[in-house]
Amino acid sequence: MPDGLESFANLDLGRAARRGYPEAVYCEGKTPEQVAAIASALRARPDAVTLFTRAAPAHAKAILNELPDAHHDTDAGLLAWPPVPPEPAGGLVVVLAAGTSDLPVAREATQTARYLGRAAELVVDVGVAGLHRVLGHLDLLRRARVVVVAAGMDGALASVVAGLVAAPVVAVPTSVGYGAAFGGLAPLLAMLNACAPGVAVVNIDNGYGAGHLAAQIAAPRPAGDT
Amino acid sequence: MPDGLESFANLDLGRAARRGYPEAVYCEGKTPEQVAAIASALRARPDAVTLFTRAAPAHAKAILNELPDAHHDTDAGLLAWPPVPPEPAGGLVVVLAAGTSDLPVAREATQTARYLGRAAELVVDVGVAGLHRVLGHLDLLRRARVVVVAAGMDGALASVVAGLVAAPVVAVPTSVGYGAAFGGLAPLLAMLNACAPGVAVVNIDNGYGAGHLAAQIAAPRPAGDT
Amino acid sequence: MPDGLESFANLDLGRAARRGYPEAVYCEGKTPEQVAAIASALRARPDAVTLFTRAAPAHAKAILNELPDAHHDTDAGLLAWPPVPPEPAGGLVVVLAAGTSDLPVAREATQTARYLGRAAELVVDVGVAGLHRVLGHLDLLRRARVVVVAAGMDGALASVVAGLVAAPVVAVPTSVGYGAAFGGLAPLLAMLNACAPGVAVVNIDNGYGAGHLAAQIAAPRPAGDT
Amino acid sequence: MPDGLESFANLDLGRAARRGYPEAVYCEGKTPEQVAAIASALRARPDAVTLFTRAAPAHAKAILNELPDAHHDTDAGLLAWPPVPPEPAGGLVVVLAAGTSDLPVAREATQTARYLGRAAELVVDVGVAGLHRVLGHLDLLRRARVVVVAAGMDGALASVVAGLVAAPVVAVPTSVGYGAAFGGLAPLLAMLNACAPGVAVVNIDNGYGAGHLAAQIAAPRPAGDT
Amino acid sequence: MPDGLESFANLDLGRAARRGYPEAVYCEGKTPEQVAAIASALRARPDAVTLFTRAAPAHAKAILNELPDAHHDTDAGLLAWPPVPPEPAGGLVVVLAAGTSDLPVAREATQTARYLGRAAELVVDVGVAGLHRVLGHLDLLRRARVVVVAAGMDGALASVVAGLVAAPVVAVPTSVGYGAAFGGLAPLLAMLNACAPGVAVVNIDNGYGAGHLAAQIAAPRPAGDT
Amino acid sequence: MPDGLESFANLDLGRAARRGYPEAVYCEGKTPEQVAAIASALRARPDAVTLFTRAAPAHAKAILNELPDAHHDTDAGLLAWPPVPPEPAGGLVVVLAAGTSDLPVAREATQTARYLGRAAELVVDVGVAGLHRVLGHLDLLRRARVVVVAAGMDGALASVVAGLVAAPVVAVPTSVGYGAAFGGLAPLLAMLNACAPGVAVVNIDNGYGAGHLAAQIAAPRPAGDT
Amino acid sequence: MPDGLESFANLDLGRAARRGYPEAVYCEGKTPEQVAAIASALRARPDAVTLFTRAAPAHAKAILNELPDAHHDTDAGLLAWPPVPPEPAGGLVVVLAAGTSDLPVAREATQTARYLGRAAELVVDVGVAGLHRVLGHLDLLRRARVVVVAAGMDGALASVVAGLVAAPVVAVPTSVGYGAAFGGLAPLLAMLNACAPGVAVVNIDNGYGAGHLAAQIAAPRPAGDT
Amino acid sequence: MPDGLESFANLDLGRAARRGYPEAVYCEGKTPEQVAAIASALRARPDAVTLFTRAAPAHAKAILNELPDAHHDTDAGLLAWPPVPPEPAGGLVVVLAAGTSDLPVAREATQTARYLGRAAELVVDVGVAGLHRVLGHLDLLRRARVVVVAAGMDGALASVVAGLVAAPVVAVPTSVGYGAAFGGLAPLLAMLNACAPGVAVVNIDNGYGAGHLAAQIAAPRPAGDT
Repeated sequence: MPDGLESFANLDLGRAARRGYPEAVYCEGKTPEQVAAIASALRARPDAVTLFTRAAPAHAKAILNELPDAHHDTDAGLLAWPPVPPEPAGGLVVVLAAGTSDLPVAREATQTARYLGRAAELVVDVGVAGLHRVLGHLDLLRRARVVVVAAGMDGALASVVAGLVAAPVVAVPTSVGYGAAFGGLAPLLAMLNACAPGVAVVNIDNGYGAGHLAAQIAAPRPAGDT
Repeated sequence: MPDGLESFANLDLGRAARRGYPEAVYCEGKTPEQVAAIASALRARPDAVTLFTRAAPAHAKAILNELPDAHHDTDAGLLAWPPVPPEPAGGLVVVLAAGTSDLPVAREATQTARYLGRAAELVVDVGVAGLHRVLGHLDLLRRARVVVVAAGMDGALASVVAGLVAAPVVAVPTSVGYGAAFGGLAPLLAMLNACAPGVAVVNIDNGYGAGHLAAQIAAPRPAGDT
Repeated sequence: MPDGLESFANLDLGRAARRGYPEAVYCEGKTPEQVAAIASALRARPDAVTLFTRAAPAHAKAILNELPDAHHDTDAGLLAWPPVPPEPAGGLVVVLAAGTSDLPVAREATQTARYLGRAAELVVDVGVAGLHRVLGHLDLLRRARVVVVAAGMDGALASVVAGLVAAPVVAVPTSVGYGAAFGGLAPLLAMLNACAPGVAVVNIDNGYGAGHLAAQIAAPRPAGDT
Repeated sequence: MPDGLESFANLDLGRAARRGYPEAVYCEGKTPEQVAAIASALRARPDAVTLFTRAAPAHAKAILNELPDAHHDTDAGLLAWPPVPPEPAGGLVVVLAAGTSDLPVAREATQTARYLGRAAELVVDVGVAGLHRVLGHLDLLRRARVVVVAAGMDGALASVVAGLVAAPVVAVPTSVGYGAAFGGLAPLLAMLNACAPGVAVVNIDNGYGAGHLAAQIAAPRPAGDT
Repeated sequence: MPDGLESFANLDLGRAARRGYPEAVYCEGKTPEQVAAIASALRARPDAVTLFTRAAPAHAKAILNELPDAHHDTDAGLLAWPPVPPEPAGGLVVVLAAGTSDLPVAREATQTARYLGRAAELVVDVGVAGLHRVLGHLDLLRRARVVVVAAGMDGALASVVAGLVAAPVVAVPTSVGYGAAFGGLAPLLAMLNACAPGVAVVNIDNGYGAGHLAAQIAAPRPAGDT
Repeated sequence: MPDGLESFANLDLGRAARRGYPEAVYCEGKTPEQVAAIASALRARPDAVTLFTRAAPAHAKAILNELPDAHHDTDAGLLAWPPVPPEPAGGLVVVLAAGTSDLPVAREATQTARYLGRAAELVVDVGVAGLHRVLGHLDLLRRARVVVVAAGMDGALASVVAGLVAAPVVAVPTSVGYGAAFGGLAPLLAMLNACAPGVAVVNIDNGYGAGHLAAQIAAPRPAGDT
Repeated sequence: MPDGLESFANLDLGRAARRGYPEAVYCEGKTPEQVAAIASALRARPDAVTLFTRAAPAHAKAILNELPDAHHDTDAGLLAWPPVPPEPAGGLVVVLAAGTSDLPVAREATQTARYLGRAAELVVDVGVAGLHRVLGHLDLLRRARVVVVAAGMDGALASVVAGLVAAPVVAVPTSVGYGAAFGGLAPLLAMLNACAPGVAVVNIDNGYGAGHLAAQIAAPRPAGDT
Repeated sequence: MPDGLESFANLDLGRAARRGYPEAVYCEGKTPEQVAAIASALRARPDAVTLFTRAAPAHAKAILNELPDAHHDTDAGLLAWPPVPPEPAGGLVVVLAAGTSDLPVAREATQTARYLGRAAELVVDVGVAGLHRVLGHLDLLRRARVVVVAAGMDGALASVVAGLVAAPVVAVPTSVGYGAAFGGLAPLLAMLNACAPGVAVVNIDNGYGAGHLAAQIAAPRPAGDT
């Protein structure tokens, strides 16, 4: 079998040009050596941001060895290179974490939106068990062009927020909770069945996907567009 | 095999004495003839209320033939005999139906609580997509000794209500909704994972069970008890 | 228990003002009489569009009795009143139906987007078993501000389209298929796991939700916004 | 992003006033540093009991560093501060553990009920494989205002107890068992389908939730109430 | 393709000789014409009992047309030919139906055991919600060489009985119940996880299989065997 | 929206040229009018065989109205036009039906293979409860280039056959069985876990897919190929 | 809370007298200290065999510290005390392991049957991928009063054996296999749907339960019994 | 119990003669000692290739101790002995890995096909998010007699490839992905529901099974066969 990068990966370097957003490198299931080889190949391409997602410490170490100035968000398991996000354009992304345990996923979403070029704000611990916590952020929520909700357990925050704002809500269920949460199945189903329309669901714990989708929804309009 | 009532049923007539609540007759899976025979046997026992649950029209007709003055709530598929509920005692039961489609289950719960001796009030169409609808009933909710919430889809109403009141919440998921509601699985899981504590879950569409549990929770205290 | 509309429904007539989009009436689980009463109450409110979703023939008949000029899309089980959609504003919504059997859901999405004020185009029978069918519509797809994909079976069309366009994709799994499609579970999971980011998933067969979400994503920007 | 407590948590210190029961701190998914910061902030609030649930040894160490006199139940993974439960009021809570392996969950329920102000007694190893073990406690069971049943495997104890007492039964399925117990799914479903009415189900292994619900059900009545 | 019986069936007429028990004809999924052809072919083989299981009315009519004196148990959907069961041998089979709705399955088990040569007694409505109903039959239960328990909902009766007798218990979960009974899944899992050993589980609603297994367990021993 | 065929379908008439096998028309979820329009359009294309699968009686009637000489296999719900299969080429396909109830699926597979150009033989009622029935066909099985096994319940026939022959086995689970067969899930999982390698699984009840795959596997080799 | 053995366990020492078989100690979920205390209490009761099941090395060490001469089968995770099984009585138990990986479960079943007083023989690696391996043991199989089959993956061995012998088959699915075996779900469902009647299913990996059930089925008959 | 190889395994050495393909040794669930004993026994049988699958490092070490020149593919967890594959015969097998994380499974398939006597080529990182990557290999794909597709997440690659080639596609879902991928369930269901016919599905992560099936499909034809 062939050796080197082409023996295990085939980078889609044209994706930023084709779709407007660069390809990310999903580290889970790759060896640190494979990730390092990809990082090395990308060093010559500083024109587009590359995100490394689901990076375990061994992945992070291998990436930082190749790209020492990459930004590393350890909570989110995310690395970004070049390290400085682009100047924000388009609408505001607001990310809500229902509880502290949802924070890693919420941070992954926030950072992804920023590195894809949006302004993004993160608000934590606004679960529906204390409605005043959500309602206290209504002004911010109504300024958002899209709201991301990261919530485990009953996932009820997505429905409540969708009932309060005109913007679409990107709901990312988390694997927070135990027993009959079944690793995020409970909030996933609740969000798919949100009684308020306007809820877009992504995969469990997929903060990257939520941030990417939010960045697309809040993208700047071409000149002359309504 | 033996004939007659004893060939298919063995009434637990002592249950009211033993547990304080009479046995109900679950009609589903019984033939109208079997239900009629049970109704006929109960005619001689007007001392305790008997509820017939999940009665299809054929069951109802068979029961009314034996007990013509029984009360029949067609929406809830429920018959009660004797037809007049006992004088209410104990605390107030408030039943909420998240949407109009949850009404049959909510009515079954309300009627069950009444026939087991509680005062019960029913409020409809208070889903969380319009929070003001729930919040508009806060005074009533805070007078309740127990709140029953019947909700399908995301089941989020149970969490929201439990976060607002000190009384326990009996949550009954309904099979309202489609697709990934999976016949009530979505609200069932959401309610089991309610982010606010104090939520007691019963089976999907089990309005009878919810009303029974609520009646027990709101039961009058023995004299001298705190 | 109370009689009349307030005994089973509590219309959220302020939703259009609050959220920018009116409440829809979900007919499943309501009796034709209940739906008729709602239709009758709405007759005095022609200022906002009302959609009646999941309307069986008996529901439709009851609605048309009250609102004879309502528009009725029998394939989609949808009625709209007033019958003429508003003048389109905002970006273009493109709806794809993977196969002919996905058409009812795709039509529900298309009509919903139109009645909520967007221009919407529908393209049918573009499943990935013949890639040329998708690729032949690339120009249209790239003009869309959001693409809705209705697909059953393997749900693969969502991933393929998301890999081709910069706009977000709203994926609505359908219950088309048999056996291990498990009523839409197979495409639902596939769409949640789309290997291309940018896929927003809604409930199985939920064309209404897909159209609503698409309308929100493609909403016109306030003046001065980028 | 902001630093300090407000960067990851937003304590609901008003919950005791609003609902009558204080907020608990769910440790799972939080870092020991986050838990320590919460413990430190609570030090100034000895007026309400705080429970830390699902505390792993690292969490416990971090909490005890901030609140050295907190009570630590290692079996239940629970810490309480201030360490002495309030004087009991209201009705008696009886907690049953079907087997020895259910004991951690049963202890979590018992301690929660005590710290929320109830008298609570714990009885162990009363599974239905030896009915005499349950029947031997009938007197105690009939003195309870609410019975908590912690059981894994077939969850049958909940049904048997509910058939014997007038008080409501709070059933908490445990993940005890293997194979087709599916992590507690088997007793969860059995309890939801209890053939005796009066069973309130909470999440798998959720001893805290069971104890909280029991404390609410057995709460003292306001003066003048029946 | 070939015509006649051999085009759709290949009777295993040697099974009684090979295994000691004849093959049964499972009617579900066969056309009445196919079942009639099989019945006609069996007419020449009165030496072994043939059972037709899951016979809908159309199947029964077709069978009775060919074998007019066959015994037809309409509740159980079972036909037997020749109509008279063999003289009983071996140990006693006791069949318990937890509720009236479990009766069709329990009858199928009882009749199957009888036609395979065992004495069998059926006891109805002995659910664990009223333990005295089970305990009242202890003498009979302890005379059984095998006990069959047909129960839906929580399936708890199997565990309770297995804890009371030395004989093995054949547990047949039924699809009785609603919501989270999930068509018999709840009692199936409960029975597989029975906390008392000695429970042999068969398929949901499989009264035939339960009766067959019971007949094998209670089979007479060869001379000289212990 | 557009009218006519192009408003709901986009026939992939080039598929036979591109892939060597023509597109089939899946009738489920299409209206009889839609199917009729497709049949009408195909009338001008007798060069390739068209199969109509999952045709309910109303579909069949609509098709036969347009293509009166189409072949109609009512058991299999299949129509073929032109009605005569091509001259067989390539290897032999042997189709096994475990039981009579599996016959519709097995016939669909057999007919599909024939209309796609293979010789195909069908053997019925060879379930593993009587191993001699399988073993009696070993000669035929060993002449096959591919064996299709249609089986419900335990799906064990696929494993047994795969252990006996060198040819690949195409396993099609059927929804035959009840209770814990869960609509074909049981044989599906069993076949995916076949202890003998060489088992290719297709969707539940998908006789068409099984026959198509078998036709591809047994396809004639190009001249000069080994 | 109380200390000592009674704080966590309530031994059912009368079970051997009541049911004829002693209670076993299920170690999973118990601490080594708890298991040691139970072992210590049993030392004074050598009249009945005690089995400790699912004993991890730490459990085994704790038990052997109290009961140094206990028999320890490390493969099966089983300890027995007193160490010598009783003299065998009743019929022969034959245990089959489909593959080598099923051996721990098969050994647990074999040893359990022996310590409960039966003669038991174990045969390994007789999966249906090589039918000759099963068929080569037909003589032994036909001498058994009950056959235990331990099999993972497709679980097909249970059906094949049940089709060959008159004795009942106790089928114990194992968690052997990967992917869609789903931890033993695949063989569990296959065994519940065995196409040959006479299969009694126990929980996944439950070798103890299989051996116990087999011992009951093969129990010696009382004098004078047939 | 017996000692030595026959106490835990019964090698099917005749399988190569009987089926044309040798038995493989599945290491998972076996101890290194058991695997070593099998390796030792095979040393005397160099006439057929033996594959050891799912070999953890401890297994590999034990095997290499007995068969030092065995080939060890560490990525695939596979060992082969004798180490040199046979001369290839039959058609070409092309293996596609959708992403880098699918590579271990794809390598297992590739190596298995080679050791069973086929020419096999492996292409990596051709997911449908960049269709050009698949389309760039069309020439190679159309030369294959069978294509193996290893893909996790949405499994969409199988459908896309099946729509492009006439050869059958063997689809092996992988457990790559997170959350609602549910350990490979999502691609498994997607592949079973592939909208293009001609997809043969094997178990999740079962690269060995996929390679074996591909080798059978691409087997050389007997002389004189078409």
